[in-house]
Amino acid sequence: MTQIYDRVALIGLGLIASSMAHAMKRAGLAGEIVGYARSAETRDIAREIGFCDQICDSATEAAQGADLIVLCVPVGAMESVAVEIAPVLKAGATVSDVGSVKRAVIDAVAKHLPEGVHFVPAHPLAGTEHSGPRSGFAELFDNRWCIIVPDLCEDETVIARLENLWRAMGSNVDRMDADHHDLVLAVTSHTPHLIAYTMVGVADDLSRVTDSEVIKYSAAGFRDFTRIAASDPTMWRDVFLNNKEATLEILGRFTEELFVLQRAIREGNGEHLHDYFTRTRSIRRSIIEAGQDTAAPNFGRTSSTKP
Amino acid sequence: MTQIYDRVALIGLGLIASSMAHAMKRAGLAGEIVGYARSAETRDIAREIGFCDQICDSATEAAQGADLIVLCVPVGAMESVAVEIAPVLKAGATVSDVGSVKRAVIDAVAKHLPEGVHFVPAHPLAGTEHSGPRSGFAELFDNRWCIIVPDLCEDETVIARLENLWRAMGSNVDRMDADHHDLVLAVTSHTPHLIAYTMVGVADDLSRVTDSEVIKYSAAGFRDFTRIAASDPTMWRDVFLNNKEATLEILGRFTEELFVLQRAIREGNGEHLHDYFTRTRSIRRSIIEAGQDTAAPNFGRTSSTKP
Repeated sequence: MTQIYDRVALIGLGLIASSMAHAMKRAGLAGEIVGYARSAETRDIAREIGFCDQICDSATEAAQGADLIVLCVPVGAMESVAVEIAPVLKAGATVSDVGSVKRAVIDAVAKHLPEGVHFVPAHPLAGTEHSGPRSGFAELFDNRWCIIVPDLCEDETVIARLENLWRAMGSNVDRMDADHHDLVLAVTSHTPHLIAYTMVGVADDLSRVTDSEVIKYSAAGFRDFTRIAASDPTMWRDVFLNNKEATLEILGRFTEELFVLQRAIREGNGEHLHDYFTRTRSIRRSIIEAGQDTAAPNFGRTSSTKP
Repeated sequence: MTQIYDRVALIGLGLIASSMAHAMKRAGLAGEIVGYARSAETRDIAREIGFCDQICDSATEAAQGADLIVLCVPVGAMESVAVEIAPVLKAGATVSDVGSVKRAVIDAVAKHLPEGVHFVPAHPLAGTEHSGPRSGFAELFDNRWCIIVPDLCEDETVIARLENLWRAMGSNVDRMDADHHDLVLAVTSHTPHLIAYTMVGVADDLSRVTDSEVIKYSAAGFRDFTRIAASDPTMWRDVFLNNKEATLEILGRFTEELFVLQRAIREGNGEHLHDYFTRTRSIRRSIIEAGQDTAAPNFGRTSSTKP
């Protein structure tokens, strides 16, 4: 594949940034990849693994001279990074990000960027429950979607170039405006995560059911929730604080629906329950047909060895 | 391994019964395995696959002369099967079941069984989102737990024999009384399933977010919920109708906790959210250490091919 950007700067070096570096190297998409992370420990690990050509000791040093600067920090940290790097950004450079929320990032970042710098937010819908520079791998984005939010950019060439990068890293690419993105993600990601966190917290709190019972008998359904409830706490705190409105709206819908099912249980309305459970079954089939999950039972988990 | 029962009768031939038959054959645990299912189509499929030595055309024919009779039908169908087979049960036989609820099954079944027949309910905590006779496999119970509920049986030899069968099919075995079982399962299985069904239903209902968006962008968290929300509707209807009290109690706890998190979001209380999300992370680790889930990212799912 051909090189798409000369110099790419990754600010923040966690799961997404390290996976981007691996994926760009796999396909030779950048002339040079430089990186920066606030924590010296993270920078050391990144140097040891070597997924960037150079790890810088400041965000400005990394951003200087870059054609593409990708903010890969938690949503709540985007603004201070933007303020820091703004003075050194080169004319014609593209700034992007990988945040899970788009309206709040646009509001926090755009106003600090100088004239002549393009801002094209993006959100790769890919991840695992692991975090940090050691958790990245080149295949993370393969066949996953990356949503590009070009609300503020009028230069089609700039947008298309960023889309090409994501495609070349393995993604499918879609465009969406910021508000619609935030609503769609509230449904497919933010509310499910909050619910999983809640369910795991409830199980942990119950004094009449011991922790060891919760753990031993988790294969009956509960363990599925613990995966997403093991995601990075800082990242998720920032998601909820910055997509408040849409998340609260979907949570309201969720609670309403839950109350209806709860009443059906209380009243012994088996027909309502059966109808509901039949309808939800077909969505699973569509997701598998769309190539967004495996058809193998239990996600294709392999049996663990005896404890 | 040595044979544990001479003749085992499986009433109902879905995922659990067919997996039991495969697991018993794998280790040679039964002299003869006979089966019965209410649907003629299921019986035909079972004959075609051949996981039983004989498929009978009635429950009484299957139960007659059996040393162990396992009721593998939805919880709501247990009583009518018990009524039907009671007259033909041989003295000294053991009746068991695999239902996800134990108090209701004991109440429905025990009163119909004749003197001299032992009733030892059991619940293997194993399954997949697939159902029916074609979905069974011998490894389903390997390293999963099977809970034995011996409340009504005073003969230790009888209980130990059934436990040996489950161990020889690959399970770890625990004992619990019926009410505690129903509470533990409300936490680790029934409430998580109801919540997953609800979340999937909400996503399907939202008119401002299309079905195709929900499906395309499901890898951001939502798809994890769709697996358990694809489970058998009849089985799950019966679970909720028959473990009403414990499920409603845990749902109440869940809603209370969700409201607290919801308020933290509304008020912008990031510290509360961060603390909560940090605590839930450690439970995942314990489940992996206990061998009850894989440590591989994303459950070890393999990347799907491009759609």
